[in-house]
Amino acid sequence: MCRIAAYAGPSIPLENIIVRPKHSLLEQSQHATEAKLAVNGDGFGIAWYDRDETPGLYRDVLPAWADGNLTSLCRMVRSRLFIAHVRASTVGETSRQNCHPFSYRRWSFCHNGQIPHFAAIERKLEADLPDHLYSARQGSTDSEMIFLTLLANGLDDDPERAMAATLAKIGSGPDPVKITCTFSDGATLYGFRHASRGTAPTLYASGSLDNGGKAFASEPLDGGSWAAIPANKIISLGINQTA
Amino acid sequence: MCRIAAYAGPSIPLENIIVRPKHSLLEQSQHATEAKLAVNGDGFGIAWYDRDETPGLYRDVLPAWADGNLTSLCRMVRSRLFIAHVRASTVGETSRQNCHPFSYRRWSFCHNGQIPHFAAIERKLEADLPDHLYSARQGSTDSEMIFLTLLANGLDDDPERAMAATLAKIGSGPDPVKITCTFSDGATLYGFRHASRGTAPTLYASGSLDNGGKAFASEPLDGGSWAAIPANKIISLGINQTA
Amino acid sequence: MCRIAAYAGPSIPLENIIVRPKHSLLEQSQHATEAKLAVNGDGFGIAWYDRDETPGLYRDVLPAWADGNLTSLCRMVRSRLFIAHVRASTVGETSRQNCHPFSYRRWSFCHNGQIPHFAAIERKLEADLPDHLYSARQGSTDSEMIFLTLLANGLDDDPERAMAATLAKIGSGPDPVKITCTFSDGATLYGFRHASRGTAPTLYASGSLDNGGKAFASEPLDGGSWAAIPANKIISLGINQTA
Amino acid sequence: MCRIAAYAGPSIPLENIIVRPKHSLLEQSQHATEAKLAVNGDGFGIAWYDRDETPGLYRDVLPAWADGNLTSLCRMVRSRLFIAHVRASTVGETSRQNCHPFSYRRWSFCHNGQIPHFAAIERKLEADLPDHLYSARQGSTDSEMIFLTLLANGLDDDPERAMAATLAKIGSGPDPVKITCTFSDGATLYGFRHASRGTAPTLYASGSLDNGGKAFASEPLDGGSWAAIPANKIISLGINQTA
Repeated sequence: MCRIAAYAGPSIPLENIIVRPKHSLLEQSQHATEAKLAVNGDGFGIAWYDRDETPGLYRDVLPAWADGNLTSLCRMVRSRLFIAHVRASTVGETSRQNCHPFSYRRWSFCHNGQIPHFAAIERKLEADLPDHLYSARQGSTDSEMIFLTLLANGLDDDPERAMAATLAKIGSGPDPVKITCTFSDGATLYGFRHASRGTAPTLYASGSLDNGGKAFASEPLDGGSWAAIPANKIISLGINQTA
Repeated sequence: MCRIAAYAGPSIPLENIIVRPKHSLLEQSQHATEAKLAVNGDGFGIAWYDRDETPGLYRDVLPAWADGNLTSLCRMVRSRLFIAHVRASTVGETSRQNCHPFSYRRWSFCHNGQIPHFAAIERKLEADLPDHLYSARQGSTDSEMIFLTLLANGLDDDPERAMAATLAKIGSGPDPVKITCTFSDGATLYGFRHASRGTAPTLYASGSLDNGGKAFASEPLDGGSWAAIPANKIISLGINQTA
Repeated sequence: MCRIAAYAGPSIPLENIIVRPKHSLLEQSQHATEAKLAVNGDGFGIAWYDRDETPGLYRDVLPAWADGNLTSLCRMVRSRLFIAHVRASTVGETSRQNCHPFSYRRWSFCHNGQIPHFAAIERKLEADLPDHLYSARQGSTDSEMIFLTLLANGLDDDPERAMAATLAKIGSGPDPVKITCTFSDGATLYGFRHASRGTAPTLYASGSLDNGGKAFASEPLDGGSWAAIPANKIISLGINQTA
Repeated sequence: MCRIAAYAGPSIPLENIIVRPKHSLLEQSQHATEAKLAVNGDGFGIAWYDRDETPGLYRDVLPAWADGNLTSLCRMVRSRLFIAHVRASTVGETSRQNCHPFSYRRWSFCHNGQIPHFAAIERKLEADLPDHLYSARQGSTDSEMIFLTLLANGLDDDPERAMAATLAKIGSGPDPVKITCTFSDGATLYGFRHASRGTAPTLYASGSLDNGGKAFASEPLDGGSWAAIPANKIISLGINQTA
């Protein structure tokens, strides 16, 4: 179980979402309240958009709260659209390649959840990737594979159809598949919740932050107006459109 | 609030204390039950004794549970006396220099607690160190300063008197000083609990592990026989003596 | 021997100095040509100024060329004044606290050179720091101590006088003191070269980069117009003034 | 171009090969003399055998010379057979998963060289791995793939035949394949040099170290008796047999 926060709107310092809110992503990294694990200390990452089509990417294996660079970057860097993630991994060694967000060209993606039967389907999913996405794979997580499969299934053209095709390819196993994710092409911010059985991990949206921006977060960042997004439907927050 | 585990006895793989017990130090790093913070993810360290008088030292800033090297080392390395520590830091960036245990020549030391008025006395404590201990200081923690002050006050000759002199030098402040620590010269393992007011952080001793060894731990490692050690008295566990 | 690059002028992506030039700082980290050591792999750092008076700070212990985050940051972050440093350390473990630049309030500072008799004067230099600078010390290098001593000697009011007082305090030892450094308060970029005997480490200035900016560098970054700055005189590059 | 050192013989501290010799592996990490790159600062690793069949593994992304833990481990840990590696990577971010040695069950393996046409054959090589080796893959290097392909081709039964089958599978490309490697099952230490065209990277063997042990090294560790091993033939150094 990881924690996610993402923003779209007027350009703001990253810290306005990641550090400053009462229940900021950094606070959630140590004191999550709606996750099985209260602590998300297995790495973190940020993807942010500025002038380039390609997002900036900053990921590290330290707990987010222990990285002095992160505080400085969040104070200095401003962005009109960004995705941030703190990771809780139950097994295995952390590497930057396994930290979210993942990025490919203009797309960025981060995930909270899991494919419990991933070991059984990994070879098939990987074999089905076209060469350019096969060689883009850097780590070994189910999360990165979901992202690459979304891309292979036409994320550029139709996110809803790409998600449906990806879920079909993942199929089901003895334990429920859980995919709560946010992703972006730099223009629109998408949020999605899904569980093949049971409840999907939380994702809240706020359509009207103080500054007019919009946000997704695993847990509401402050006392403002946040609504749980519905399951099985891609919600999009555009910079110049209503949620 | 950190967690400590230490062992003296017949040579065993480090994992027998750090990894394998039901409530091992590694388990306590994620699920401490007798500490304010359940998670101790701000670095870890091990000091262990073998043939040399000088202990080996392995410290890193990652959470203990995220370091693949640690698992391998704990499986391979055997020792007759070792001290291990997982760290929970409430403020600041983690560095190896601030991870416990600290070592100086044949001594190793780790600490759970704090000197809340440390900022007010740091210059004085440091100025009172002899040159060889001043230049041995590597980090910026109150813990390392307690260790160096113990050494300056005759730890080699009389641990009880060195501790009394150190506590006198530290004095008191608006918030209570808390020092629970284990330390060793490679022959004897020492444990100590102290609070200037209120309750000292826990430290338990087991005088008869399965293999005949003895141990200290912030929280009992298993269902065996563990007793909280009394406060304000140095308890020693020798390899060839009764606790 | 480390390598330095610094810039003042119209806002540019950091990569225009650090990554893109033919003999960029990143290139110099692997193939320095005017240093005793060709490789500077013991950490790196960047201090950059934007809207805040306080600079951003990004430092890590990896070799600069091995940090994927650095490439991304240098592409995304733009600044009107920044200082960057790659470190070659001959002894000891690397820690972020010992990586340059150092910063204090609006000032940033990085250094190439050494005080060979530092061990003999460290206690005196530290004892002479006022409390607020004593408690700002994070690492153990001579470089950080030079910076704090400059601040204690009035860097805010008169850089020339602060430097003279600092050099007097450092004095001389059996081996020559070498201090080549760049530093800034966010408005002006300063460069300085000094050796108590022999030759000071190189520092070149370019008063007219392609974009109208100015720069310092340990080695010229490209085929443009670069001049070695004279020793023992602080050279300043202002954003709106001639060098 | 990386540097390798490996040992088989009476149990010795790792430092006797890695740290202490005049031209030790640690020295070669900064001052290699027979490699294109003099510096090997992109991570390091050690695999060592003791009582267990499974080797211990210690790998990190720091330059070997900057890791204080390594010095301590090399002083404390003793082994009768070990392989050590310092890495020079020309491209990409370093991760522990890409540091050598690689290990699988009782086998360990490290490599110096490259498959220049790896991108063209990676999918085929990976697809040909049996499931248990496919899921053992942790990183993205050609080196790890050579190791897994050796295992898939019967390394357990016949190293010569496994190597021949692996080389056949790798085939040739526009640039020459270069594979100089050492590997072990914990009983025998193997060394091998191969270039599809031109000269294979160096590997020397010493059949009689001071203590009666034997060693491989990319460059002779000291002034003793070292001979370049011939190309295209697996050389084995057994603990109880003549080279």
